[in-house]
Parts: sequence; C-alpha cells; structure tokens
Amino acid sequence: MSEHAGQPTKSSGGHDAGERVQASFARQGLMRLLGAEVVEVGEGTCVVEVPFAEGITQQESYFHGAVTGAIADTAGGYAAMTLAPPDREVLTVEYKVNFLAPAHGEKLVARGEVVTAGRRLFVCRAEVSVVEGRDERVCAATLQTISLSPARAPDRKPGT
Amino acid sequence: MSEHAGQPTKSSGGHDAGERVQASFARQGLMRLLGAEVVEVGEGTCVVEVPFAEGITQQESYFHGAVTGAIADTAGGYAAMTLAPPDREVLTVEYKVNFLAPAHGEKLVARGEVVTAGRRLFVCRAEVSVVEGRDERVCAATLQTISLSPARAPDRKPGT
Amino acid sequence: MSEHAGQPTKSSGGHDAGERVQASFARQGLMRLLGAEVVEVGEGTCVVEVPFAEGITQQESYFHGAVTGAIADTAGGYAAMTLAPPDREVLTVEYKVNFLAPAHGEKLVARGEVVTAGRRLFVCRAEVSVVEGRDERVCAATLQTISLSPARAPDRKPGT
Amino acid sequence: MSEHAGQPTKSSGGHDAGERVQASFARQGLMRLLGAEVVEVGEGTCVVEVPFAEGITQQESYFHGAVTGAIADTAGGYAAMTLAPPDREVLTVEYKVNFLAPAHGEKLVARGEVVTAGRRLFVCRAEVSVVEGRDERVCAATLQTISLSPARAPDRKPGT
Repeated sequence: MSEHAGQPTKSSGGHDAGERVQASFARQGLMRLLGAEVVEVGEGTCVVEVPFAEGITQQESYFHGAVTGAIADTAGGYAAMTLAPPDREVLTVEYKVNFLAPAHGEKLVARGEVVTAGRRLFVCRAEVSVVEGRDERVCAATLQTISLSPARAPDRKPGT
Repeated sequence: MSEHAGQPTKSSGGHDAGERVQASFARQGLMRLLGAEVVEVGEGTCVVEVPFAEGITQQESYFHGAVTGAIADTAGGYAAMTLAPPDREVLTVEYKVNFLAPAHGEKLVARGEVVTAGRRLFVCRAEVSVVEGRDERVCAATLQTISLSPARAPDRKPGT
Repeated sequence: MSEHAGQPTKSSGGHDAGERVQASFARQGLMRLLGAEVVEVGEGTCVVEVPFAEGITQQESYFHGAVTGAIADTAGGYAAMTLAPPDREVLTVEYKVNFLAPAHGEKLVARGEVVTAGRRLFVCRAEVSVVEGRDERVCAATLQTISLSPARAPDRKPGT
Repeated sequence: MSEHAGQPTKSSGGHDAGERVQASFARQGLMRLLGAEVVEVGEGTCVVEVPFAEGITQQESYFHGAVTGAIADTAGGYAAMTLAPPDREVLTVEYKVNFLAPAHGEKLVARGEVVTAGRRLFVCRAEVSVVEGRDERVCAATLQTISLSPARAPDRKPGT
C-alpha cells in the first residue's frame, strides 16, 4: 500500500478535513523534495501544485512523468481523506495514469475528486494540467482506488 | 506523454542498447534527485534500484508510493528501449500500479520486462521489491503501455 | 488489440460519424448477443445501453461485470470513432474499469467521451449507470486508450 | 462491485475450493451464454476457456475484446476464491486489461493467478492466449484488484 497519511492526525481540537490534509501533507518528505503544495481542499476535492524546478524535470524542461503521477495520486488520496472518518488511514490501493500531452510549463496542477465513497473503498480521479503563461492544458488523467483502514497503533515507546 | 528519453542518444560509437539506456537515464534529473540507478540491462529487461534516503520516504521510513511508481515506470520504459530501433523515442502512454505491501527497507528494486513488442506500441510490466537485510518482498506491480515515436528534430539553433 | 470496427465502413454516401458508428456496431455479434444498442452519438461522445435480460446477469438480477465493461469499452471506442478520420481503424489498446456499485436494475447506460484526441492515440473515459425505475446511479468508470491505425486491406480474393 | 460469487456456496459437504469455484461459476448466466468453462483450479490459480462461436466474435472470426476481458476477470477472481476463506464474497474492485494481439483462433484460454493475498484485498493477474491449431499466442494481460467481503445475508423470503 502507498500511504497518504501514515498515522492520521488525531484531530486534537477540530475535525476539520483541511487541517488533517495539511498536517499529513507536511509529513511527506517527498512532497517537500518535489516542492509540491496543497493549494485547495474542499469536500471530496483537493488541488496540489508543483512549480517548475530543474531537479524534477527532464531535459528540455518537461516535468517528469513521475512527478505528474505523484501529485495526481496525492490529490486523489487527499480528496478521499476529506470524506473519510478521522480515525481512518487513507491508502492508495492502485491507480492508473494516462499521459495526455507533454508537460511543459511553469507549474503542474493536479485536481483530485472523489467519484464514489464506500465504507472501505473510495474511487477517485484526478486531472493534471500544465500551466504556461496564460495557457493551461490537461496533460494527465488518473483513476484510483483508495482503501480506508483502521489506524495502526503508533509504534512508540511508552512515555513518549 | 511521459518521456523516458527525450531525443534519443544518437548512438555515437555503438548501437548498444545498454549504452543508450544509461545515456538517457543520466539525463533524467528526477532519477538523480531520487538517487536511482540502472543496475542491469538485458534484452527486453531493465532493473532500476533506489536506496533508502530521508527525502524520498514518508514518516516511519516507508518509501513513498511515487518513488515506487517512478522506478517501475522507468524500468518498464527502458526495458522497451532495449528492443526499440535506436531512432525511436520511447514514451509512456499510461501505466497502472498496484501497491501490494508497505515498502519498508533499505532498497527498492524494480524489474521491468517487455511483454509484447509491436511496431508502434509495447506492453511492459514491472515488479518492485523492497529489500531489508536478507529479506526481499514484492511491494508493487505495474502494467504499462509504451509508444515508439519517430524522434523529434532537436529544437536548437544551428551551430550549438 | 480489441477492435471496434474491423475494417471501417467505406462511408458510401456520407462521412457521417453516426452512420459509421451504427454500421460498425451492427457487425458486432457480441453486442447483439448482449442486446446492446447505440442510443446516441455526438461529436466525441457515444451512449450505449443494454436492457436487463436473464442471460447477461448473475444470480439476483445483477448485471454481470463483463457486460458493464463491454459497453463501457464500446461507448468509449465509438466516441473515439466520431473524431477519427474515416479511413482509420479504431482499436482498444487497453482500459481500466472500476466497479463502483452493484449493477441492479432494468437497464445499463454507458456514456463514453473523448478526453484527448491525438494523431495516433486517443484517451477516452466512460461512466456506466444502472437505471431502476426513476433512479439512476453510477456503477462503473473506465479510462481507456484507443489506437488509430491505417485500415488493413480487406483480405479477399481478386475478382470478388 | 462486480461479483464472482454472489452469495458464496455454503460448502455443504466439503471446503474444497475447486467445488466452490465450479458451483459459483455454474450460477453465472453470462459465462454460459459465452460458452465459457473452468477447466482447471489450483491453489491460487484458475484457468477458464471459451471455444470459438459466431455470437461472441466480431466480423473476421476475431474473439470480441469483451469476451477476452470477461474470462480474464473471471480467471483472476476465481484464482482469488481458492485462497479466500469460504465465508467471504469475492468481488472485483477493478481491473486493467491490455490487448496484445488480435484474438483469432479456435479457443481463448485465460490463466489467472493470485499475486498477493491480503486480509481484505487480493491482487491477481491473468494472461489470455488464443489457440489456433498447434499455435498459442498471448493476446491479453490483466492486473486486477479483488475484495473479500463478509457474505451478505441471502435476500429470501422465509420458508423458501
């Protein structure tokens, strides 16, 4: 399983989904490495952006497909988290991504949304666009299965 | 499209597929950022590894799913390149990845192979394992469609 | 490859996409066996329906997942055909289907649409709903890759 | 969800997985309509065949892609059933199918196998071959997610 959340935020002082998403996102080292940000969280939706940077492109300033896939997966997973009970872990079971156009531009924007929310499984989709000046074009689409699991007991020593 | 190669290596001094794969891989900024390496190239196969590092994991030392997806896509794409004519670009049209187990360990290993090689489309698959001490377990599986395109003319000024 | 069209209708008397779709559909034995019909063809869209029948369900009057998958694939493929040059074959390279809810009702409706239309590859998606009385609920979603190929020369003897 | 089993066989007189698979398969109207048969059941494996017939092909005697998808899904799902507890329902969450070659021949053979067996989710794959005389060639590959659910109470009137 690919985790979006690890151990979920114990929502001390608020069940707000946006807070949970941001707190979980902040713990993801890779998202920091890529320079990705959650820019919008709604009910069943999440938008993730990543600006252009040398390290995450290929030659010729194209965003790498793995970055596209990563933020699409993330946007879909956090869209699911907004509708999941706070004590559940949100894990990606699988996803499929189609690359639709070369991702050349200043910024990638992944818009994730929940298609159906079941008791144990969610299906989400995301569309990724690349922004170049005033131009925005869709460059990838995903369809994704998310699993909700009971949160694992945190693996920590007593007293910490 | 997600590119593995951009403009293909003009195979100066050898049509060797392994060289082409390594040359193309070396130009991929993201693979460097992740610390990934091509460790084996065969006829229709490619093995990519990435060692554990803080920046590419989640909390609790799990490899991030995006890293798993990235090296699986890469291993499959370069497996295709070994069977493609040298003047063709190798692009990922789409892939599906199933996450099978938490990726906890010292090293991820993606083994890609060509399932069928058509004139314009290849289908590849990859299996990703996580290595921890002497233990190795499969943590992801992909099924992938690759397109072979005529190489685009390099977009550069004369004399450069 | 999975074909939607076999050798394409030579559009005798009109390049109309709707006619081409209906002519191709009429040649598909399986669609007849399932009782499926193309009920709407637009520019980049196609709607396929199949009414309830004993032979295509499971016990308890659920439509079989294979029927759901079949009409989703078909709706997406013919949506592609409406935007394809008339001399091209429309083949399904691959698709992914997520089953979202039990398909219990009188009728399945698959709505296919083109997401992006390339020179050689189209990406399409379809949503399948099940209709029961006045109720309609989404029961499946697909994401699909379609290939456009030059029509193969018909395999026939000279003089026929 | 796409069901392989509906309400599972209550294993009257034997927990044998092969019996459960055959009993479940026998209740599937569509498999009868297609002329499909389970020809082999192992531990974590299942082979489904379907002979050539006019109604399930396209023009030119190609097997229809939906038939290919249907028996691949079925072979994978029943492979899962062989490793599932007898009181669990086996449902297809989703699958992806790649069509690798035209399916022209006398018989389609789908070989399904379990890749990983979790507590609630299985991942399976299947390969479909087409047999023509002594020739057998792979024509499709699938990767599939299966869910194990507690069996639903049968919906029946008292006294029946």
